[in-house]
Amino acid sequence: MLRNSENNAIVIGVAGGSGSGKTTLCERVIEAVGAETILLFQHDAYYHDLSRMPVSDPARINYDHPASLETDLCAEQLNTLRRGGQVAQPVYDFSTHRRTAETRPLQPHPVILVEGILVLGEAALREHMDLKVFVDADSDVRILRRIERDINERGRSLASVRDQYYNTVRPSYEEFVAPSKQFADLIVPHGGQNTAAVEVIVGYIRERLARG
Amino acid sequence: MLRNSENNAIVIGVAGGSGSGKTTLCERVIEAVGAETILLFQHDAYYHDLSRMPVSDPARINYDHPASLETDLCAEQLNTLRRGGQVAQPVYDFSTHRRTAETRPLQPHPVILVEGILVLGEAALREHMDLKVFVDADSDVRILRRIERDINERGRSLASVRDQYYNTVRPSYEEFVAPSKQFADLIVPHGGQNTAAVEVIVGYIRERLARG
Repeated sequence: MLRNSENNAIVIGVAGGSGSGKTTLCERVIEAVGAETILLFQHDAYYHDLSRMPVSDPARINYDHPASLETDLCAEQLNTLRRGGQVAQPVYDFSTHRRTAETRPLQPHPVILVEGILVLGEAALREHMDLKVFVDADSDVRILRRIERDINERGRSLASVRDQYYNTVRPSYEEFVAPSKQFADLIVPHGGQNTAAVEVIVGYIRERLARG
Repeated sequence: MLRNSENNAIVIGVAGGSGSGKTTLCERVIEAVGAETILLFQHDAYYHDLSRMPVSDPARINYDHPASLETDLCAEQLNTLRRGGQVAQPVYDFSTHRRTAETRPLQPHPVILVEGILVLGEAALREHMDLKVFVDADSDVRILRRIERDINERGRSLASVRDQYYNTVRPSYEEFVAPSKQFADLIVPHGGQNTAAVEVIVGYIRERLARG
């Protein structure tokens, strides 16, 4: 059936816009299957240092643009993990907009969730995936979730959320995220609240693990 | 997790436009899991007799309109099968546009696939479903498949396929089928050729059957 017939990890890509519920979906899948079995592997650990970003003003960085991420390194480390190796993942400090001196040791797991808004748009990541999932939600639901998260959890103002949304989040969604839906094997509507979809993905993982 | 915790059959709704590949998807799932385990339960067995159709000219019947189907009976028989009973399903003769005198005996199965373009649009059917799947394909792909099927397998002319498409198929898709996507738990793009999606649905079924 799938390409990945050796003893490699099962790799599932989970993409979708900011506020689509992809992180919630990943968390619910991990909770059901067990954190000892599934590694959450996030694209946004691979942000470039501010000095390498296209724009030097942190408030104007487009974190939703593919060029803001070191995807080559991300794909290389994903491939190592998939084949059973360990990696030292970069740690990004969002307050200084730089990678820290530390790295995060990641151990191989039977299942890897590759999560990020742009992971389905990158061929270098797609080629390692057994299953490609796009988490979908209407644009009004996505911006409402983003506003709540940024105001309540990150202490931002509504005006700053709005400006960032119009300046970078929305244009990048239209240009890079939405078109990457074409590469999905499955589209999950209603985001992280979609219990039946969580159960389907969990069932798929359990069945593949049981098959060995 | 799901509502259906008794020993009822697992019911999966599979909707999508004509030519979307939903029948192929169902066939591939049945082939993988086994026909002794899965019953294919098709909404279009429940077409009304021509005499009860809104329009009396067979060439102008809108087979894609919800009113053309006896969905109450379909839902009643689905519920009986789901609870382990047998039913006598109507048999529709598309050449005479009438139900035949015979019926088709259907036995209960552990899994029921409820297939049809309109099955997600009907609350009476949805309430019996554990999982709701919408098979999606772009409109150009759908019409191309329909043309090939109707010309090659049913000996129709291109002009008659086109006329039916503009008169009934396309307007009903826009009015009834596309809006029913909102009720889906999963959207399967690329129709029946989507091997990863087939494997996910198969894995979900096997895992639920193993759990008992």
